[in-house]
Amino acid sequence: MKTIAILGSTGSIGTQTLEVVAENKDIKVAALAAGGHNLKLLERQIRQYCPSRVAVWEEAAAKELRASVRDLPVRVVSGMDGLIELSVMEEVDILVTAIVGMIGIRPTIEAIKAGKDIALANKETLVTAGHIIMPLARECGVRILPVDSEHSAIFQSLNGEDRKCISKILLTASGGPFRGKKRSDLEKVQVEDALKHPNWSMGQKITIDSATLVNKGLEVMEARWLFDVSLDQIQVVVQPKSIIHSMVEYVDGAVIAQLGTPDMKLPIQYALYYPDRRYLPGERLDFGKLSQITFEEPDMETFLGLPLAFDASRAGGSMPTVFNAANELAVSKFLHKRIRFLDIYEIISASMQAHKIIQNPTVEEILMTEQATYELIESRW
Amino acid sequence: MKTIAILGSTGSIGTQTLEVVAENKDIKVAALAAGGHNLKLLERQIRQYCPSRVAVWEEAAAKELRASVRDLPVRVVSGMDGLIELSVMEEVDILVTAIVGMIGIRPTIEAIKAGKDIALANKETLVTAGHIIMPLARECGVRILPVDSEHSAIFQSLNGEDRKCISKILLTASGGPFRGKKRSDLEKVQVEDALKHPNWSMGQKITIDSATLVNKGLEVMEARWLFDVSLDQIQVVVQPKSIIHSMVEYVDGAVIAQLGTPDMKLPIQYALYYPDRRYLPGERLDFGKLSQITFEEPDMETFLGLPLAFDASRAGGSMPTVFNAANELAVSKFLHKRIRFLDIYEIISASMQAHKIIQNPTVEEILMTEQATYELIESRW
Repeated sequence: MKTIAILGSTGSIGTQTLEVVAENKDIKVAALAAGGHNLKLLERQIRQYCPSRVAVWEEAAAKELRASVRDLPVRVVSGMDGLIELSVMEEVDILVTAIVGMIGIRPTIEAIKAGKDIALANKETLVTAGHIIMPLARECGVRILPVDSEHSAIFQSLNGEDRKCISKILLTASGGPFRGKKRSDLEKVQVEDALKHPNWSMGQKITIDSATLVNKGLEVMEARWLFDVSLDQIQVVVQPKSIIHSMVEYVDGAVIAQLGTPDMKLPIQYALYYPDRRYLPGERLDFGKLSQITFEEPDMETFLGLPLAFDASRAGGSMPTVFNAANELAVSKFLHKRIRFLDIYEIISASMQAHKIIQNPTVEEILMTEQATYELIESRW
Repeated sequence: MKTIAILGSTGSIGTQTLEVVAENKDIKVAALAAGGHNLKLLERQIRQYCPSRVAVWEEAAAKELRASVRDLPVRVVSGMDGLIELSVMEEVDILVTAIVGMIGIRPTIEAIKAGKDIALANKETLVTAGHIIMPLARECGVRILPVDSEHSAIFQSLNGEDRKCISKILLTASGGPFRGKKRSDLEKVQVEDALKHPNWSMGQKITIDSATLVNKGLEVMEARWLFDVSLDQIQVVVQPKSIIHSMVEYVDGAVIAQLGTPDMKLPIQYALYYPDRRYLPGERLDFGKLSQITFEEPDMETFLGLPLAFDASRAGGSMPTVFNAANELAVSKFLHKRIRFLDIYEIISASMQAHKIIQNPTVEEILMTEQATYELIESRW
């Protein structure tokens, strides 16, 4: 019997994690945390999975939830203290960090210190604080188990292998809805166009990030930390159908790949039971019907999300935080139709140029860098 | 420092094994065995790799070789006794069975009993005697390390995984030079046409086996024993460029694959150093240039080598020996232009129909079945 806590239980990864729990009989959910925008769903989750503790971000929402679940033996907490309280609970084996944003970093650090394995679905954690998280995880002997489909594919392709024998990581990318388009085509892109992802059904922010290739850039940054490789060892390969979820090339020239249907429950379940595999209902790849897998090189001149991410990661220190924060705010402005699609790149690039790097930033410095980036953007755009 | 003995050192796999040895500084060659058709090459190998013992099949050839290497401290032996003497040498860690034909079975069994790991490149061993070899290997605690590129790919895709979680094995096939052709197209096929393999440069017999898909059928039979799966768990997928060398689907739907350039030195080196990987010079897959990987279902109605192999394997006992022996003689007759291409299937099928299965045959019974199959074919064709 495993016991987990989920930060971000009402989001896409959170709800699918709970589906995996429901399909297996030997995982217990000790705690759930959610933003509080969807209290009805959270309440249903509480009634179905019976966590002993629940956190919502705003105290007002927590109060409302307390009232609606007063018939249940559950303690409802709020704020960062609440998130941290959940993350270090004695009985928790694995903390699933499916929460979005910087808010995930502190609970993750506290969970690692408390010896919990991390099923990592929060991108910001490694992008901005990989230099803190990875050494701490090694020191505390905890596993960072990637939930993202590409990183899980790499993780699966590394199973049983010596990481010293990695020659390079081949991170696959669908290329997003605008693959094949040129810069001039992107000038008049509308929010609705950008939200049509060819293969995966995901949240709005990540779908835009997929269209800009910023998402792939963030994955490059994460891969660097997760698999302890240099940036030069990471190559992005565009593979429009997302059949090959990613690959590893070894020193002998062998390439090991993980393929599958686009079902996030596979990497979620793999993270929860690693190194074991369990039966998972769902569609299987049918190579008779598949016909072909095609490959392309990414268009780095049109989709600046990728080269900007490489630049930010190579610069290091607090620069990836700037890249991430600038993108986050820019995407929000684009979704609210306040800027155009290509302005996202412009905002990231200008924010990076204006930034003076802090080497080895602390969590406080990372959060300050995020704020400063937001303020700079708000003052200019 | 590892010490190996190679049965079949002058063939395609044997010479490439020696190239791998030359590129690594920590393998010693204790013994070489060859058929004796190419004594000049064998002598050069002896002078370069300095084995302490060498076997050639015919005593006359052994005598000739003894004379030409009398300046060296090497003992030259002959016949089956010679092969066995090499296979059980005290200092040998791994026996590479790159010899062709039934002749490989007895030395392999003796090597297993003597605790040697087997780098297996002899197809007949598992096809005809898998029911003897695999339990014996388990009992003696030795590893059967596949050298064949497809089986190595499966073996690599199983690294670190629990074999109980295999859902199915996806054995890839190039489809051979006649892929896409129908039965009527194959009626007038010439030896020269059949010898043009699209991807791999191999010996004549195996190239014809690739054109008939008998080779893939033999690989199915081997895979069944090597990976302890049922025939229903083995699916052949045609993938003309041979980029994906084979795949494993697990119970959770994840497919792990090994991809690479068509270089036999990779599986050879992997078998010799398993589970370690070493740098191997050579071309790497370039996904930017690759453009695409295509898949097809095998045409089981035209290329009867595959369904006949499934039938023989399903029937079990001595039937796979009949399949293999009938094919061997039929291919020889085809190469000598004594029969037509499609007669190969006819000869295999008729031989199988005429055979009365012996369950769990001993090595003697396997060899007798082979002889009886040869005699039947010679009496009819």
